Amino acid sequence: MKFTCAQSDLNTNLSLVSRAVPSRPTHPILGNILLTVDADTQTVSLTGFDLSLGIRATIGAEIIEAGNLTLPAKLLSDIVSRLPQGEITIATIANDDDEEILTTIKSASGSFQIRAMAATEYPELPTIEEGQTLTIPISVFSDGLKGALFAASADETKQILTGVHIRTSGSAAAPTENLEFAATDGHRLAVVHTSALLSVNTALEEQEGNKSENLTGFALTIPARALRELEKILGAKQEDETLSLHFDDSQIIFDLGDRRLTSRKLEGSYPAYEQLIPDRFSRTLTVDRKRLIGGLELVSVIADQKNNLVKFTLDGEKGQLSLAVDTKDVGNARESMPAEITGTDTEIAFNVKYLMDGLKALAAQEIKMHLNEGTQPAIFTPLGGLKMTYLVMPVQIRE
Amino acid sequence: MKFTCAQSDLNTNLSLVSRAVPSRPTHPILGNILLTVDADTQTVSLTGFDLSLGIRATIGAEIIEAGNLTLPAKLLSDIVSRLPQGEITIATIANDDDEEILTTIKSASGSFQIRAMAATEYPELPTIEEGQTLTIPISVFSDGLKGALFAASADETKQILTGVHIRTSGSAAAPTENLEFAATDGHRLAVVHTSALLSVNTALEEQEGNKSENLTGFALTIPARALRELEKILGAKQEDETLSLHFDDSQIIFDLGDRRLTSRKLEGSYPAYEQLIPDRFSRTLTVDRKRLIGGLELVSVIADQKNNLVKFTLDGEKGQLSLAVDTKDVGNARESMPAEITGTDTEIAFNVKYLMDGLKALAAQEIKMHLNEGTQPAIFTPLGGLKMTYLVMPVQIRE
Repeated sequence: MKFTCAQSDLNTNLSLVSRAVPSRPTHPILGNILLTVDADTQTVSLTGFDLSLGIRATIGAEIIEAGNLTLPAKLLSDIVSRLPQGEITIATIANDDDEEILTTIKSASGSFQIRAMAATEYPELPTIEEGQTLTIPISVFSDGLKGALFAASADETKQILTGVHIRTSGSAAAPTENLEFAATDGHRLAVVHTSALLSVNTALEEQEGNKSENLTGFALTIPARALRELEKILGAKQEDETLSLHFDDSQIIFDLGDRRLTSRKLEGSYPAYEQLIPDRFSRTLTVDRKRLIGGLELVSVIADQKNNLVKFTLDGEKGQLSLAVDTKDVGNARESMPAEITGTDTEIAFNVKYLMDGLKALAAQEIKMHLNEGTQPAIFTPLGGLKMTYLVMPVQIRE
Repeated sequence: MKFTCAQSDLNTNLSLVSRAVPSRPTHPILGNILLTVDADTQTVSLTGFDLSLGIRATIGAEIIEAGNLTLPAKLLSDIVSRLPQGEITIATIANDDDEEILTTIKSASGSFQIRAMAATEYPELPTIEEGQTLTIPISVFSDGLKGALFAASADETKQILTGVHIRTSGSAAAPTENLEFAATDGHRLAVVHTSALLSVNTALEEQEGNKSENLTGFALTIPARALRELEKILGAKQEDETLSLHFDDSQIIFDLGDRRLTSRKLEGSYPAYEQLIPDRFSRTLTVDRKRLIGGLELVSVIADQKNNLVKFTLDGEKGQLSLAVDTKDVGNARESMPAEITGTDTEIAFNVKYLMDGLKALAAQEIKMHLNEGTQPAIFTPLGGLKMTYLVMPVQIRE
């Protein structure tokens, strides 16, 4: 195996696929990156895989001798990242020992020899022979992730809640529909309603050139961890490009041409979150988003110390929202700001962290808060921009 | 107690004095910052003190009511750093309880109440009634720290080696002399020879207007930790300002007018380091400093994995320095660069970390390495710039 490629290409893509390499691999070979060197296409594919999440990136290279090989991920990244810009040549040295193959890495400055492992031991990335294919503009998928990903649960025991639920909602007759992204950890819920024309086909239909299938009931739950990596990959792409999703019962593949991410799907039925969102509200409050974030940051200095609780007081006559934090041992904090209020005055308390997460994702200058009583869920929506609903369960105030 | 000051002034100086507040105070009050509010001078002094290192900063303020008070360092810094720019008013609320005093912190936006503790419990910063006073240009002291501080030992059991040794060398007749900074951890030694006119007086002489005292044998060892904080404080000052040192047998005070740092001195006699530096060398090597640093960074990717060892091979005929790292389990690395070499060819090995530390401090485009045999200490000096000597003990190469 021998090839020459650009240091910058190799470096960027090694960082990317290394994200799927486990830091404590259960088997030594999973700590390696698979290099697949293909003479026909004059490309090198780099693969990292932790048996759940897989990332593959393909770069152009001058192939002198085709072959497959795995190299220690961290060591390879460390070396390549410190080599000067320019050409890098990676080659194996003939060796009788199948288990360990000596590999040289050469650039204009510096030369390395490190030990590789044969590719035969490296697990195959999942492939999908049958199943559905979806093509989505990157901008739509990015919007969905931006508005929902943060709300997924970080608690691994909560299984299905550690993922983002993606589904189409609409009638059985429509071949193209809107995609909805939702995530909840039981304390708050974020839902993004995107408006995109999707092309959806089953693999079989594609082959037969048939028209699109009925999509009613189409729904997937994908681990947040995989989607966070996908978000990084999408960030480097043009927003007008498209992303293809291939999936079957257990796996999903996100295909971007030169980059591909595979993940297992989360099993189980996702909570019927739409039932949590109240139909009507007795009060609304419109406020400048940055002003509210600034105020919460300020008063949370005190809240952080203990219970993370902030109390909202709505004063319609003054047109004022007051934030208050009281912590017995530490002290208290007050902050007020102008707000447009409808309905009778009230008080409601929230966990500051949940509010902040949502307010950062609600990308609009002003946001509207809809609420009933202080014990019932409040929802936040942006005025303009992304169509998003953020629901937060209030915390009961003990007097 | 009540005063008004600028948020930016308070914020900057709180960060500064907080560096002397222990993260795990042995007594609760040491986790606080002492505020001394003086109506005569219309200033507020902020003090942090861990019983070894003390930092005091004084800011201008509008004093409404004088007094002393201590406030929790972290909470106060967190609040002030998040308040908007502009005026801040800090005031105590009358309270019968001596132990806990409620304090309000108000700005245009946001208002806080936090619990203070009385200043009476706070320990006094050391003062020096008798002893010597030294006045040094900041630029000289900064140079000394830059070239020596990094070489002090981080091992607290090594006592005197955890400090930087500062001394004057010269004849008894001269009232102004050169200051020398030295630090060693037993594996390497850094010495900076500064050229500055010092004014040195004993406190007694100052009062009586007498001429300067005999300085032969003047020497101090100051904890590196205190000097690292001093370096930060000096960094914010103009290089042409001066720094005053007051010291007695056990304490030293660095005085910059509005900022003051106190530290205990390290006790014990400092090693006679000048005896370690060889008088003559059989070989020299002149090389571009950044090229050498770059080469070491590259090959150390392999060295980092195991024993941190790099081998230098000097080839006078080729005019070439080669760096090599060989690690049985991981692999090997090679890198060569042009160098001007005198003396016979040889090999010598070093701990990469020690070399890198020194090369970063030797601020010149080219550096000169002086050596004898591969088992004897090598010294590095810059060509031009700071007058500095960096000695590194080589590591014996096992073939």
